[in-house]
Amino acid sequence: MPARIQEGEQRGWIVPIGGAEARHDRARILKRFVELCGAGDADIVVIPTASRLADTGESYEHVFSDLGAARVTTLDFDTRRDTSEPNRLERLREASGIFFTGGNQLRIATTIGGTPIAKLVRERNARGVPVGGTSAGASILSDHMIVSGKEGGSPTADSVRLAPGLGLTNRCVIDQHFRQRDRLGRLLAALAYNPFAVGIGLDEDTAAFIRPDNVLEVEGSGAVTVVDAGDLQFSSMAQAGEGEPVSMLGLKVHILVAGATFNLDTRRASAGSLAESKGVH
Amino acid sequence: MPARIQEGEQRGWIVPIGGAEARHDRARILKRFVELCGAGDADIVVIPTASRLADTGESYEHVFSDLGAARVTTLDFDTRRDTSEPNRLERLREASGIFFTGGNQLRIATTIGGTPIAKLVRERNARGVPVGGTSAGASILSDHMIVSGKEGGSPTADSVRLAPGLGLTNRCVIDQHFRQRDRLGRLLAALAYNPFAVGIGLDEDTAAFIRPDNVLEVEGSGAVTVVDAGDLQFSSMAQAGEGEPVSMLGLKVHILVAGATFNLDTRRASAGSLAESKGVH
Repeated sequence: MPARIQEGEQRGWIVPIGGAEARHDRARILKRFVELCGAGDADIVVIPTASRLADTGESYEHVFSDLGAARVTTLDFDTRRDTSEPNRLERLREASGIFFTGGNQLRIATTIGGTPIAKLVRERNARGVPVGGTSAGASILSDHMIVSGKEGGSPTADSVRLAPGLGLTNRCVIDQHFRQRDRLGRLLAALAYNPFAVGIGLDEDTAAFIRPDNVLEVEGSGAVTVVDAGDLQFSSMAQAGEGEPVSMLGLKVHILVAGATFNLDTRRASAGSLAESKGVH
Repeated sequence: MPARIQEGEQRGWIVPIGGAEARHDRARILKRFVELCGAGDADIVVIPTASRLADTGESYEHVFSDLGAARVTTLDFDTRRDTSEPNRLERLREASGIFFTGGNQLRIATTIGGTPIAKLVRERNARGVPVGGTSAGASILSDHMIVSGKEGGSPTADSVRLAPGLGLTNRCVIDQHFRQRDRLGRLLAALAYNPFAVGIGLDEDTAAFIRPDNVLEVEGSGAVTVVDAGDLQFSSMAQAGEGEPVSMLGLKVHILVAGATFNLDTRRASAGSLAESKGVH
């Protein structure tokens, strides 16, 4: 559950990225993330716990520094005990931005879930600090997280596995590498269980910049597929046997590219400045 | 996510029951639920949407009336459209207690999830109305809900399937028919994904009466198994392959019987009046 927002304050941006984002010449997404964190004053903590590779944190240190951040520090957590170390908590408390790398979302959930670090990430976000993540680091941001699933466009009764994430928002369920790995079916299956959330499918090099007012702005070279099951008339997930296809009647789907927005509260999509400049609404 | 509690108000009790509760002579659990709803003034709405049997609602109408409730009404929802009918919403708004029967928790989640009824149940609970449920009706109450899983005492990487529930509380993950169906393994697997929640395993004819202050009181003839993963040192869920056993180091487990309590905020267990009368603390 997100931490409470204090009176007179507003939540920080939440920035899930679909993986494989451009890091150098055309690093539109990471550049914008650095700007949100304070541009030349940005003080970013990178958490590479999802990754098994030793240099993941260091690699993002270089990228964020090249993009103009004043200070970038990698905070890795090998064990749950690491998450209560006072100096690491202190370092996280100073940060003006927090970034989760890719890897395996269960490495983050099993190592950080329920620890002082998880709580502090939620608290800092509630006090205005932007929190972003790519690939596994995107999935972990929401309350209900997709862990794994089957490829393909149609939902089946066993096509997705869910687990609790870090819980910065419960408005959406996030999936990544979306069209590259053909994941519509598993995102639909997640909504077939309980249609309350909005499904967000992020293509590679594409991000949903979720503003403090819960309007999502699309950035990057691909598309964001938004699935709104709010008016769903029927889901057969309760009746479907293991492996059987699931019916879902009345889904709304939006495919959004850079400049388009979607309001997670009112569930209205807009083509944004792109359409306005062409006279489309 | 639970609805916000207004200033000067407190949340209503949340009462998950492990299934197969006594309904007549020794109906300790249901009797206490009626008392919480106002005893002789109780006005209870029974939601039998989990069940496929036509007489489930009627059967609980008789039981609650026999236990002294002033008014009992069954509100069933066959389709998602049913959940926005003004007269049903109005009836639910009047109730001093809401009860979900057993059956299949996905029938509730797929039919009611994300609808005005789901929202109203959370709002009424936030304003003091007790919400109870048995078996599937118990599972549905929490934010992260166990849908299905494998029998057995040990967690494996595929031994549990989770989905979003109604979200009255996110402090715990609830399982039912607990020792009767040998479900410790699947409850542990749910916590192995993300150890933030407390696992609550309810035996049949046993209930956790969760007070407005998040202290859980055990009632009934069986036990409540509380699994606290808050100090977990390690979970191997991120590394385990499909079907492989999962390691979890540092779990705390309490087996609690009637009269015992567990504080979901401080995570302290107490044997309660039972132990006090014997001088045990």
